[in-house]
Amino acid sequence: MYIILVYDIGEKRVGKMLKLCRQYLNWIQNSVFEGEITEVKYKELLIKAKAIMKEYKDSLIVFKSREEKWLEKEVIGQEKNDLDTFI
Amino acid sequence: MYIILVYDIGEKRVGKMLKLCRQYLNWIQNSVFEGEITEVKYKELLIKAKAIMKEYKDSLIVFKSREEKWLEKEVIGQEKNDLDTFI
Repeated sequence: MYIILVYDIGEKRVGKMLKLCRQYLNWIQNSVFEGEITEVKYKELLIKAKAIMKEYKDSLIVFKSREEKWLEKEVIGQEKNDLDTFI
Repeated sequence: MYIILVYDIGEKRVGKMLKLCRQYLNWIQNSVFEGEITEVKYKELLIKAKAIMKEYKDSLIVFKSREEKWLEKEVIGQEKNDLDTFI
């Protein structure tokens, strides 16, 4: 499936969350990720994310689509490209 | 159509952008909005957003889906509810 993941996490935990999400998804904006992921990998990601989060104050929202083609993306201004940081 | 809008905007402009987006969409996380919107209203929103943004440093990403039912949402932790702030 294809997912969009957005988080709003306390400053102390945000570095860990960023690192975690980048292992599974593409980083496209400050706290926004997208990508193709299997159900198994998605469950794994959620378990790890919950271990980082304080659920009474942090927020993680995931939008899931069975097919990437059902979502059209429009970018205005800057888009992060995760590849840039590796090359 | 149904859209998810996420932004990463400089501090000086973020208040204006928040106010603008709340006129068209539901606020669900710090810089994340969702909602049903017509093509006409969407174009109007983009024009106004571009007027606020500095496109060489700010970022606005919109995911569009023809039908809300094609997207499943999962929330972990806190979700803003725009109604709360009005009641």
